[in-house]
Amino acid sequence: MCGIIGFTGYTEAKKVLIDGLTTLEYRGYDSAGIAFYQQGTINTIKTTGKVSNLAEKVKALDTLELQAESSCGIGHTRWATHGGVTDTNAHPHTAGKVTLIHNGIIENYRELELLLKKEGRNPISQTDTEIAALLLDSLYEGDAIKAIKQTVELIEGAYAFCILFADQPEVIYSLRNSSPLVACHTKEGSIIASDMVALIDYSKDYFVVPEMHIVTLMKDKVKLTDLDGNLVCPRMLHVTWDMTAAKKGGYPHFMLKEIHEQPESLRNTILPRVQNKLPDFTADNIPDSLFHGISRIIITACGTAMHAGLIGKMMLEKLLRIPVSVEVASEFRYQDPIIDKGTLVITISQSGETADTLAALKLSKERGAATLSIVNVKGSSIARESDYVLYTHAGPEIAVASTKAYTAQLSCLYLLAFRFAYATGKMEKDACIDELQQLLHAVSVLEEVLSQDKIIEEISIQVKDKEDLFFIGRGLDYALSCEGSIKLKEISYIHSEAYAAGELKHGTLSLVTEGVPVVALATQQKVYSKMISNIREVKARNAFVILVTVEDQEAEASIYDYHIVLPKIKDEYAPFPAAVVLQLLAYYTSLHRGLNVDQPRNLAKSVTVE
Amino acid sequence: MCGIIGFTGYTEAKKVLIDGLTTLEYRGYDSAGIAFYQQGTINTIKTTGKVSNLAEKVKALDTLELQAESSCGIGHTRWATHGGVTDTNAHPHTAGKVTLIHNGIIENYRELELLLKKEGRNPISQTDTEIAALLLDSLYEGDAIKAIKQTVELIEGAYAFCILFADQPEVIYSLRNSSPLVACHTKEGSIIASDMVALIDYSKDYFVVPEMHIVTLMKDKVKLTDLDGNLVCPRMLHVTWDMTAAKKGGYPHFMLKEIHEQPESLRNTILPRVQNKLPDFTADNIPDSLFHGISRIIITACGTAMHAGLIGKMMLEKLLRIPVSVEVASEFRYQDPIIDKGTLVITISQSGETADTLAALKLSKERGAATLSIVNVKGSSIARESDYVLYTHAGPEIAVASTKAYTAQLSCLYLLAFRFAYATGKMEKDACIDELQQLLHAVSVLEEVLSQDKIIEEISIQVKDKEDLFFIGRGLDYALSCEGSIKLKEISYIHSEAYAAGELKHGTLSLVTEGVPVVALATQQKVYSKMISNIREVKARNAFVILVTVEDQEAEASIYDYHIVLPKIKDEYAPFPAAVVLQLLAYYTSLHRGLNVDQPRNLAKSVTVE
Repeated sequence: MCGIIGFTGYTEAKKVLIDGLTTLEYRGYDSAGIAFYQQGTINTIKTTGKVSNLAEKVKALDTLELQAESSCGIGHTRWATHGGVTDTNAHPHTAGKVTLIHNGIIENYRELELLLKKEGRNPISQTDTEIAALLLDSLYEGDAIKAIKQTVELIEGAYAFCILFADQPEVIYSLRNSSPLVACHTKEGSIIASDMVALIDYSKDYFVVPEMHIVTLMKDKVKLTDLDGNLVCPRMLHVTWDMTAAKKGGYPHFMLKEIHEQPESLRNTILPRVQNKLPDFTADNIPDSLFHGISRIIITACGTAMHAGLIGKMMLEKLLRIPVSVEVASEFRYQDPIIDKGTLVITISQSGETADTLAALKLSKERGAATLSIVNVKGSSIARESDYVLYTHAGPEIAVASTKAYTAQLSCLYLLAFRFAYATGKMEKDACIDELQQLLHAVSVLEEVLSQDKIIEEISIQVKDKEDLFFIGRGLDYALSCEGSIKLKEISYIHSEAYAAGELKHGTLSLVTEGVPVVALATQQKVYSKMISNIREVKARNAFVILVTVEDQEAEASIYDYHIVLPKIKDEYAPFPAAVVLQLLAYYTSLHRGLNVDQPRNLAKSVTVE
Repeated sequence: MCGIIGFTGYTEAKKVLIDGLTTLEYRGYDSAGIAFYQQGTINTIKTTGKVSNLAEKVKALDTLELQAESSCGIGHTRWATHGGVTDTNAHPHTAGKVTLIHNGIIENYRELELLLKKEGRNPISQTDTEIAALLLDSLYEGDAIKAIKQTVELIEGAYAFCILFADQPEVIYSLRNSSPLVACHTKEGSIIASDMVALIDYSKDYFVVPEMHIVTLMKDKVKLTDLDGNLVCPRMLHVTWDMTAAKKGGYPHFMLKEIHEQPESLRNTILPRVQNKLPDFTADNIPDSLFHGISRIIITACGTAMHAGLIGKMMLEKLLRIPVSVEVASEFRYQDPIIDKGTLVITISQSGETADTLAALKLSKERGAATLSIVNVKGSSIARESDYVLYTHAGPEIAVASTKAYTAQLSCLYLLAFRFAYATGKMEKDACIDELQQLLHAVSVLEEVLSQDKIIEEISIQVKDKEDLFFIGRGLDYALSCEGSIKLKEISYIHSEAYAAGELKHGTLSLVTEGVPVVALATQQKVYSKMISNIREVKARNAFVILVTVEDQEAEASIYDYHIVLPKIKDEYAPFPAAVVLQLLAYYTSLHRGLNVDQPRNLAKSVTVE
């Protein structure tokens, strides 16, 4: 989950590292640290909290040391897994000649720790990372490649390392297993990072470090080798993103900016797939033959992407009449899943690096499933591992709380349902054209709803001091409720929970008392009267009801406290505009509680550990 | 959801009604009321709160009116759906000559209300029930059967009614659609109720009122007719339950008694199905032919029964390698489910009357699925509608929070998985014998864990004042966490939530701060190290960790605050003893918060409305 950067070259390394960590901060911000060569020795500076704290500390040091220059170093921003958030547990970690940073989890670190202690090598922190440093130092006799190889033969887990050796100034060694690393070389020097967002200011050309390969970064070149030191030619990629898209624009927070980018990101995702008014995946290299012979679909993902899957399931089942199951990736991968050749496994991930989702994908392939992924980041691990990829063109998403990536994922799932149904003869051409029009119409309706922010902000002020909040809905409204709840929860820290409206009375209703806010989604015409009955049940307990309906639906004033009315839209497409309501509610609630909207505590943007 | 009773006979009716309502109180206790003939007119007494409040009020009146006798009346205990909890909204409701009680929901009551208002008939309460009374009164011209028929032709929804007409003293008319009603006649008179628990003191022989039929109760007989008044012969049933089983024994609460009854209820459920050391459903009339040709299983249920399904899914998939999906019944029935002849639909319900589950079952049958239900109450609607029934022999469960019914449901699902796998050649005889032995061993282990109540009570004192609590687990531990959470939530009103341990970091981790209790179930050996990593993640945020492991599993003291150790048991069977830990935690937490353990606010035992 952590952010990693390394640089060796011809400019001030500390600046490159701090700039890079600032860009990477969305990956974790529990603590940050850098290590760099200065006048022949390795200096380490680290601190809990944000990268800005680290920058202050570095600045103070620079003043003290009369602006001493450094041209090689490594930097890390941490999302704590093993050991609490302390200065000692922050990276980099040093053991003897070795100083390193790490992203991932070393699973057998307890066993290794016992072995090392027997040799009198005692860690000072509570991290798994320091154990790796001690181990590597114990094996290092001057040949870095050899020692690294011996080390990775002993450790189990997921990792990306950047390593400095005290006796090899100006050189950085890196390798990875599962956790991401990308690298490039420019005339200013060589640079490596866990995400190419940190490279983009230096180069638009980069390569993904192959797993279990070693990258040696020197001032004048980057060398890629296998574990035995044999040279390997890296496969270069070119970045197409515009870096301005990764700035906040005029918005106070990335999240609000990203909410407002949704009409654009949705059209960017949908329109390139429209040919002759029909959905078309030719440019994505997804052939219709993929869809023939599929008798079962499994969608597996984590968090918000998994919630997109819940909505996708309903759309796919409706159009295809094939059973679809949605599985939490961290559960799926350990549950010996039932998969055969007739199974299509769809994985969804914004970053394309979500560790559990990647593992679920690999397992599915091993068992013979056809695999298709919906991913936002090009060339990411999940995209590379999948048989087929349908990219969301949402652009970089910086806020930890996903918004535009979610709706873009939904649009991909809808497009997939359309094409699949059309290609297998389950939907007529005219019907398919009509559905696609409805989807584009939904984007326009979503755009209209963005202007309802005033009433939503007013509601947020009413609910911001509540301890608990419930979302209820039926069908697609329930699936969307799951996402609405996690959105509110992750950035406002209000304990919210989503419930199928009919399920509430089987236990949770005991928590609904006077004034408890209940967001009741009632956009689905076919279950409207049932939903109203459920709203009466909570209103009979004097809940504070925020009702969301579609235009022309009658609702007595006695059953709600606030009423948000969406423009007219068909049941199947209501999740698009309704998602905006829930996103804005989460945003304003966090804002009015005075919290850090874009960087909620304890969370990280891209979850590359289990 | 409400409880209904009616009596006409040769003893004091008020006493019969109050006694009956006390027995039925588990069906709802928002308010209670009775109506009875006294000196030629109908008297109504009703009040919010418990039946004991009503009893006080009746007693006061009796003193005032010099012990005036009554030999015919109706009584009701309410679980509010339409309209708040007020005296006015309590049943019975009177309109002109009609006084009635109702269980169910009249869906078109708004339309009917508008029509009635045009005729100058205005309700005084906010209930759907009063509308039914007004409508019936408007149609009544002396012929009760005719007026009832006309009324039910106009109303839509689910209902059970007991009706008094002012000009027909000593006679009660009843009918039902969906909502339950049973009746009997004894030498003391005629009696009708929503559950035979209320009849058992008077008779062990009774009949289930057929839907859309009218029962006329008179002092000397009970008459069953169709809506046109044609006589129909009732199908008599005999109660086999021992009424002493429905008392609290020596325990302070039904819930604690029922937790301790689990070894017995499990053995009662399992042992009659053991023949020659193998699971055998001959006595249940479930042939092995049912299992052949099944390519997909759907488990549909509500609340706790649905959570039993989550565990059943894992066991069935493991042994059968057939995809199993678990669906919330209130969602399933409206989602146009994909069902074919190769689909087995398993419905689970303690009461056998859960409205959504019943509807899901009916829909599954219509679509050609084979159906099997797991039900505790004999002759209940779900048992009658299913092709096959596997009864849990848990005895009456009175506490609203289900305990022994849940574990009995689990045992039925395990037995089903064994027999299914054995009958279809997916499990060898010896392996099947071994699994059954493991299941019986799990009952013994569960029994041992009952004695760990002291440490669990101590933990409950630590967590009782917390606002939020999380349960985490992987695999079967996650499925069990869902049940642990609803159990705690429904009776302690602490907002708890269950999470797949690997999913926590995708949002909810932002709520885990210093002192927040996290119950971490780590009974599954195969994912133990992964689970420990997740526990470290919450401990790094200083959560208050209650760890549950199995004997011989190592756990460092630094990762937990309390540690509960279960006796050694295989992964697949750990949910049985672990369930007891979670039940006792919920029980003691509710107790130490000073709450009504057996009757939590807003909830009812048997959910017979949508």
